[in-house]
Amino acid sequence: MDIRTPAFQRLLEIWLDEDLGRGDLSANALQAEAKSAYWVAKEAGVFCGGIFAEAIFKRLDNEVNVKHLIKDGEKFDQNQKLLEIHGPGKALVAGERIALNIAMHLSGVATTTHLLASELKGSGVHLADTRKTTPGLRMLEKYAVKCGGGINHRLGLDDAAMLKENHIAWAENIDQAVLAIKESAPWPARIIVEAETAEQAEQAIKAGADGILLDEMSPALLHSLVPRLRALARTRVEITGANTVVIEASGVSPVHLKDYAKTGVDLISTSAPITKSSWIDLSMRFL
Amino acid sequence: MDIRTPAFQRLLEIWLDEDLGRGDLSANALQAEAKSAYWVAKEAGVFCGGIFAEAIFKRLDNEVNVKHLIKDGEKFDQNQKLLEIHGPGKALVAGERIALNIAMHLSGVATTTHLLASELKGSGVHLADTRKTTPGLRMLEKYAVKCGGGINHRLGLDDAAMLKENHIAWAENIDQAVLAIKESAPWPARIIVEAETAEQAEQAIKAGADGILLDEMSPALLHSLVPRLRALARTRVEITGANTVVIEASGVSPVHLKDYAKTGVDLISTSAPITKSSWIDLSMRFL
Amino acid sequence: MDIRTPAFQRLLEIWLDEDLGRGDLSANALQAEAKSAYWVAKEAGVFCGGIFAEAIFKRLDNEVNVKHLIKDGEKFDQNQKLLEIHGPGKALVAGERIALNIAMHLSGVATTTHLLASELKGSGVHLADTRKTTPGLRMLEKYAVKCGGGINHRLGLDDAAMLKENHIAWAENIDQAVLAIKESAPWPARIIVEAETAEQAEQAIKAGADGILLDEMSPALLHSLVPRLRALARTRVEITGANTVVIEASGVSPVHLKDYAKTGVDLISTSAPITKSSWIDLSMRFL
Amino acid sequence: MDIRTPAFQRLLEIWLDEDLGRGDLSANALQAEAKSAYWVAKEAGVFCGGIFAEAIFKRLDNEVNVKHLIKDGEKFDQNQKLLEIHGPGKALVAGERIALNIAMHLSGVATTTHLLASELKGSGVHLADTRKTTPGLRMLEKYAVKCGGGINHRLGLDDAAMLKENHIAWAENIDQAVLAIKESAPWPARIIVEAETAEQAEQAIKAGADGILLDEMSPALLHSLVPRLRALARTRVEITGANTVVIEASGVSPVHLKDYAKTGVDLISTSAPITKSSWIDLSMRFL
Amino acid sequence: MDIRTPAFQRLLEIWLDEDLGRGDLSANALQAEAKSAYWVAKEAGVFCGGIFAEAIFKRLDNEVNVKHLIKDGEKFDQNQKLLEIHGPGKALVAGERIALNIAMHLSGVATTTHLLASELKGSGVHLADTRKTTPGLRMLEKYAVKCGGGINHRLGLDDAAMLKENHIAWAENIDQAVLAIKESAPWPARIIVEAETAEQAEQAIKAGADGILLDEMSPALLHSLVPRLRALARTRVEITGANTVVIEASGVSPVHLKDYAKTGVDLISTSAPITKSSWIDLSMRFL
Amino acid sequence: MDIRTPAFQRLLEIWLDEDLGRGDLSANALQAEAKSAYWVAKEAGVFCGGIFAEAIFKRLDNEVNVKHLIKDGEKFDQNQKLLEIHGPGKALVAGERIALNIAMHLSGVATTTHLLASELKGSGVHLADTRKTTPGLRMLEKYAVKCGGGINHRLGLDDAAMLKENHIAWAENIDQAVLAIKESAPWPARIIVEAETAEQAEQAIKAGADGILLDEMSPALLHSLVPRLRALARTRVEITGANTVVIEASGVSPVHLKDYAKTGVDLISTSAPITKSSWIDLSMRFL
Repeated sequence: MDIRTPAFQRLLEIWLDEDLGRGDLSANALQAEAKSAYWVAKEAGVFCGGIFAEAIFKRLDNEVNVKHLIKDGEKFDQNQKLLEIHGPGKALVAGERIALNIAMHLSGVATTTHLLASELKGSGVHLADTRKTTPGLRMLEKYAVKCGGGINHRLGLDDAAMLKENHIAWAENIDQAVLAIKESAPWPARIIVEAETAEQAEQAIKAGADGILLDEMSPALLHSLVPRLRALARTRVEITGANTVVIEASGVSPVHLKDYAKTGVDLISTSAPITKSSWIDLSMRFL
Repeated sequence: MDIRTPAFQRLLEIWLDEDLGRGDLSANALQAEAKSAYWVAKEAGVFCGGIFAEAIFKRLDNEVNVKHLIKDGEKFDQNQKLLEIHGPGKALVAGERIALNIAMHLSGVATTTHLLASELKGSGVHLADTRKTTPGLRMLEKYAVKCGGGINHRLGLDDAAMLKENHIAWAENIDQAVLAIKESAPWPARIIVEAETAEQAEQAIKAGADGILLDEMSPALLHSLVPRLRALARTRVEITGANTVVIEASGVSPVHLKDYAKTGVDLISTSAPITKSSWIDLSMRFL
Repeated sequence: MDIRTPAFQRLLEIWLDEDLGRGDLSANALQAEAKSAYWVAKEAGVFCGGIFAEAIFKRLDNEVNVKHLIKDGEKFDQNQKLLEIHGPGKALVAGERIALNIAMHLSGVATTTHLLASELKGSGVHLADTRKTTPGLRMLEKYAVKCGGGINHRLGLDDAAMLKENHIAWAENIDQAVLAIKESAPWPARIIVEAETAEQAEQAIKAGADGILLDEMSPALLHSLVPRLRALARTRVEITGANTVVIEASGVSPVHLKDYAKTGVDLISTSAPITKSSWIDLSMRFL
Repeated sequence: MDIRTPAFQRLLEIWLDEDLGRGDLSANALQAEAKSAYWVAKEAGVFCGGIFAEAIFKRLDNEVNVKHLIKDGEKFDQNQKLLEIHGPGKALVAGERIALNIAMHLSGVATTTHLLASELKGSGVHLADTRKTTPGLRMLEKYAVKCGGGINHRLGLDDAAMLKENHIAWAENIDQAVLAIKESAPWPARIIVEAETAEQAEQAIKAGADGILLDEMSPALLHSLVPRLRALARTRVEITGANTVVIEASGVSPVHLKDYAKTGVDLISTSAPITKSSWIDLSMRFL
Repeated sequence: MDIRTPAFQRLLEIWLDEDLGRGDLSANALQAEAKSAYWVAKEAGVFCGGIFAEAIFKRLDNEVNVKHLIKDGEKFDQNQKLLEIHGPGKALVAGERIALNIAMHLSGVATTTHLLASELKGSGVHLADTRKTTPGLRMLEKYAVKCGGGINHRLGLDDAAMLKENHIAWAENIDQAVLAIKESAPWPARIIVEAETAEQAEQAIKAGADGILLDEMSPALLHSLVPRLRALARTRVEITGANTVVIEASGVSPVHLKDYAKTGVDLISTSAPITKSSWIDLSMRFL
Repeated sequence: MDIRTPAFQRLLEIWLDEDLGRGDLSANALQAEAKSAYWVAKEAGVFCGGIFAEAIFKRLDNEVNVKHLIKDGEKFDQNQKLLEIHGPGKALVAGERIALNIAMHLSGVATTTHLLASELKGSGVHLADTRKTTPGLRMLEKYAVKCGGGINHRLGLDDAAMLKENHIAWAENIDQAVLAIKESAPWPARIIVEAETAEQAEQAIKAGADGILLDEMSPALLHSLVPRLRALARTRVEITGANTVVIEASGVSPVHLKDYAKTGVDLISTSAPITKSSWIDLSMRFL
């Protein structure tokens, strides 16, 4: 996660604006001194958010120092200390809630991802995220998914083309839809086709898609379809330039992950780490 | 929720920036026509987000029309249609994910709030939110809490003063902390003291606090403490100008809400609708 | 005044943009060296603006050091030195006018406030500001009012609800208007009713208003009305939760302040420190 | 005044942000209908601000219509109607204060300017503004000065070069300072030298300055000096390319304007319309 | 090119800010009426910029209508009319220079691209752009390259990973560098390795790179190397999942394009359309 | 060039946003250490862009140090080292392309300016730029023109008024157009009239224009016209306040510069350094 981007700097200002508003009433009224504090976990999980906490506190006061006792992506136990903070009291008090909110949410995402990814361990199948992310937090939640052991799918509408029902209808058929993207998009952009039937998947492969998303298909169906699609891909090298295809299953309930892991797909994409996770409870204690 | 604010307009740009990035690859490649679509619920819940969906689609193309079949704050059943959208196809496709993401998340918050608030029905006790909100979505999540039947607590650090351990330490004691805020804050700003013990609660009332937050106290303790605090408040009218106080319990597990509802507190504040809710599954279907 | 807010940072950029435009022509043409300078008052007054001056100079060049010889809110005499500045000459020259403009204006507001507040000294009545503030400078002018010994009224339309003629008409009557706000606004938000007649004031109190603004009433009328309203408030504790009300007079000419101070109101709100003050003349002298 | 500029659009957002904050509490709580209203003057003056009022209301709701009964720069009497507004009630209520604040302040500036400029009527001497303007409102106040019959001096540090004590010291002398600007600045940029003595004024003219600012000199001194400077300018045509110079007096008390009007200067620059004016009282009445 | 993005909207404001500054002096001084105008080419070329011209004029005044006589990407002759504009005169005058500047520059890029791409016609080799683009105009120049018949390479540092000398050194070798990206980047992100020698190119293919950039190699060397690399790629299907690789030549002088077109590479990437093109002369004529 | 302006700070963010997007994929994947690098010229030219390069690298990481071996505006030879950079590797790698792009483009502008200005050497005629500049880079390209030995014309529509065909038509004639500007614009604003015929030029001078732009006239015509215009200007001192006028030729092909240099004009304005220059090839080499 690259916090140097203007996009992240804009977010940081949004967060402060939202909580500080016209200014912290208590900071305006009271004299404060330098304080030390630490973060402690009230339940176990996978940490995510230390780098953002540091950015928040330092934006409030450049004198704040943050010492990371655990890195983003590492596991922690209940009662474990996660980071130490030292600096002007007003910055610590003003940044506490914002920093905890982001880290509690993201650690929830990372922890849920970790649980789901564990189901796929050893299968060679990756758990990937989707574009179902909390508006404003896409990049942070995708970072949390990586912290939890998942991989990232495309970051936005400009990052890879995913052709769905409407796109195909506009282009009249899959062949022409794929062709239109190839002619228009930057060459490194992947083309993924969302297939609702085996026939669509086959057409997409013949058309030269880089990835096939198989939505809401049963493990049994995938079991027979996936090898067929891979074989079909191997035949296309002369025509379309690649004999492989990335096959992705979506619409998979977390409880069936293990069944899908055996179907030979490359990825299982799921929004569950974002849409179905709870925040991990963290606390900031002042010394 | 007032979407005319510059703060909301900034958010809207953040959301589009995040998903569109350098531009929708498929919109650039394909010709699209006008389309109609509708939203349908894949599970029952309380709706929240229709006004934001409309703002998102109209920002993408002013020609889009949104017809609300259900208002924010209303309940819906599984398979119920929620809104209809008609307009240029590229706007519908580009806005679909962002609009659904915000509505699915907020409807999750509203639905969870509704469930929790139902526990308090008839008790006269209100369910209130906290500042534990997703960074960037504070005002929207607080709107969702209202849609679900809860009430809003302070909106930010500038909206009411909540005196915690550190503030009290800086001012040396509760009396001086409350006094400092009274002298510095705008007169309409409420002063709330977070009390960890019965003694602190009593000192806060004597000092003239408008609200007392009683954190992590048992129903039994509250049962005896609340009437004592109310009686104490009634004695203070000559000195501090009000003989009432708003008493709030926090740190309450959702499963114990009914027990706390009988303790005589005014509010139970909880972040559960935000930190422990799942998204409600909604789908956009094109005609 | 909390200069860490994004709102203040945006203001600072607006100010620099306005004066620097495409860049200081003389700074581009000349070589400058480090300089020392000080600010001196050309007339007596109450100071306000030192913290903004420092922010302006440091934004131009982080090497600038500002030494405050007097704090915001303190009185100064003619010819008194107010602050010392040392740093790169181009930053001092580029920031001089912006910093003086803000401090001269705000010191004018603080000084006028001080004069008016002195009229109320010993009466227990507070001088409060209003929302009649210079667009873009609301928070700074409210800070200046506090520097001059006044108190702040609500900061904006989101900070407390003030029900006026239109709002009451939309809700049909005062009772329903107050009720609508109570159900919609965050609980700490105060509800103030602007009453044009004694009857309206009484209705507002019965409806549970936290504050009553009595506009353009004579001292004689207030003299009899205020005790009646306070008595009425004492009767409402069972129904509405508070037996006190904040009573505010507005539309008071500065020359009649002392008359109004004896009417028993809590506040006299006036925009005079902003709408009728002159700038205090300050000068920056280079050593 | 060009309200199409991004600079004005940014200002407009700052104003709304400041007053609406997280949203108008009463607009969120109440249902409103379309309303008509008008502005009326509670005292006579010169109007300024109608174009900004319209921009404010239309930003809040594009359905609002504003009818200008009087143009910016025209005089009005007490009780005269100034503009009519019709549109959604929530937009009228939310924009009322912001729009009136800007128009009351700017009409104060225009009215004071008009009074001062009247002193110079028939003399051929222009009243000009300075860079002593309220931070954030420079262009609007300069527009108000024009509405009142004054003329605008340079708009910012990038718009013309004014050489003061420090600049001259850095360049070692006036000659070299003027030369450095000529070599560095765009050719249309004027060079003005602030002269504290007659000698400096003469050096500046010899160096080729376009304008001379004579600060805090008596009418008597100016009376003899101005013709001397003009004669000197006539001699320089071969060397510096122009035989005229704009001569400006500053540091002139408003009470002495008429004396200075006879000294032969071209301009008298004064910040009085901004630093010493009161707001003109205007009121918005709903029908 | 997707002009709905916040990124494009920010650019548009930058352009207007730059030219309008504090406002168009002539628009402020003069009364204008509605005008019609058209654009005419003073030399032949490939057009690019019509969609931006329309956005610029409509941002200045929503009443402006633009009729496109030729689409972006189409060729035009000297003296051909390109578009017609009708609307308020002040908008036409204020937008003329900005709109022409962007279209003249981009048409220059499109025309140069077209000339270079023509050299490759029939060869099956694509002409691609690079990240050497004018700061602030990346997406527009890449759009112009497509208008001229080229294809786009990666859009930024986040869009595909290109491993150069430093990256390889940090990871110790090509294998580990490719692996690190595969583990960290979103799965659709391509990995391209810049190879300075044939050995590096072979290592990169073995490591699983999606693309190989061969910098500053002679046609003769490429002639023998490219088939070798393709053969190597075909062997890797079991290990790395793809038996094809995109081979790109860079550092190619425009005069040698035809020689490189016969080497069997897929792409020749060049910054020449941006770094070495002149603007196409277009003129706006008022009727 | 004043990089302290908010306008430049906004540009810097635009540049980073454009290239970093959602974050540098390689920086996220790899561990980097501190690096040293230098810039070297691959061809000779006039340097421009060192101050921007430093700003770019320091924005990415405040730890970066840049040592300027040559100043903006100085000439360099092929293979000459231009600057040295030391700092965190990720900042060097992320900033390299942006910094080089801006410096290569601007050095191209400076170098072309230098070549053209050399044609005028000794003639006393200045080479000036125009408003034909790359959108977003106006101030930087004008800085580059100065680095190359040219001078800057007006910076934008607010900086001087240039009256063209439309303006004159709106005002009915040149006299009234000039008068309208004089009454409306700040006094230091110059008024320039674009004359298409000798008659228009004479009318403009009589009307009091500060500058005359003579577009697309032959050297022969100018040879006779310029002295006539100067003589006419000398006659106007009593009426309009200045007996000089700045005479500018435009529409001059670079190949005829020397012919125009002898016509007696003050300036030759040309967009050639921007519209017809190529980038200078610079390279960043890591140690």
